Amino acid sequence: VASAAAGGEAHLVPLSLAWDGEVVTLALQNDSLTYRNIVSSGRARLGLGPTRDVVMIDATLVDAEPVTSAPADVVDTYAKRADWDPRQAGPGFAFIRLRPQRIQAWRESNELPGRTLMRRGDWLV
Amino acid sequence: VASAAAGGEAHLVPLSLAWDGEVVTLALQNDSLTYRNIVSSGRARLGLGPTRDVVMIDATLVDAEPVTSAPADVVDTYAKRADWDPRQAGPGFAFIRLRPQRIQAWRESNELPGRTLMRRGDWLV
Repeated sequence: VASAAAGGEAHLVPLSLAWDGEVVTLALQNDSLTYRNIVSSGRARLGLGPTRDVVMIDATLVDAEPVTSAPADVVDTYAKRADWDPRQAGPGFAFIRLRPQRIQAWRESNELPGRTLMRRGDWLV
Repeated sequence: VASAAAGGEAHLVPLSLAWDGEVVTLALQNDSLTYRNIVSSGRARLGLGPTRDVVMIDATLVDAEPVTSAPADVVDTYAKRADWDPRQAGPGFAFIRLRPQRIQAWRESNELPGRTLMRRGDWLV
C-alpha cells in the first residue's frame, strides 16, 4: 500500500486486505503514517502479487472507522478474507475502505498493452 | 518501488532490481512517472517480498544514467542480477542507483520490534 502526505514523501507498507468485489478494506493502526496519509489525501495505490504477475489498483477513500465501532459481522468478514483478525492486535486499529478507480494487471512487459481492467471505477472486462 | 512527486501523489510500480551489497540499481523508462519522481525528489521506498516476509528499504538517489551510456560490463551485471536486460527493451531506458538509508525486515507483527537492520546508511546487524 503506497500513500503520500501532502508534503510529497511516498510511504509503502505491506498490509493484508479484504476484497468484496467492490471495495478493498484495510485494517491498520490509526496513528500509522499510512492511515494518516490516506485519510488526508483520500487516495492510495495498491500493488498485489510478485514483481512479474501484478495487480495495481489506484483507489479513493470511501471511509475510515475504528475496528471497535464496526459491527461484529463486518470484522468477522474482514478477518476471514484477510486471514488476520485486528481485534487480536490491540487497540487503535481502524478499517479503511477504498474504492478502486483504476485496476491494471500484467505479468511482463509484453502484457503492458491492454493491461487496464478498470478505468474511472468502471470494469473494462 | 514507491515514489512521489513534489505535489504529493504516491506512485507504485513493480520493477526488477540489482543489489551489489551497497547500491540498488533499477532500470526504467526515462519518461516514466517513477523515474521522474525519483530524480526530482531524490528518494524512493522499496518493498521486496510477499506481504508476510518483507524487506522495506528507504533509499536516496545516487545517480541516474542512460543505459546506452553505461559500460557494457555494468549493463551485463545488472542484466544478470535483475534477470532482465534493458538493452532489449528499446530506447529510453535509464539506470537509477539508490543507496539504502534504512532497511527493515519482518514477517508478521510479532517481528516488528527489532526489524530495523540499517539506519542512516549504517548496518545494525
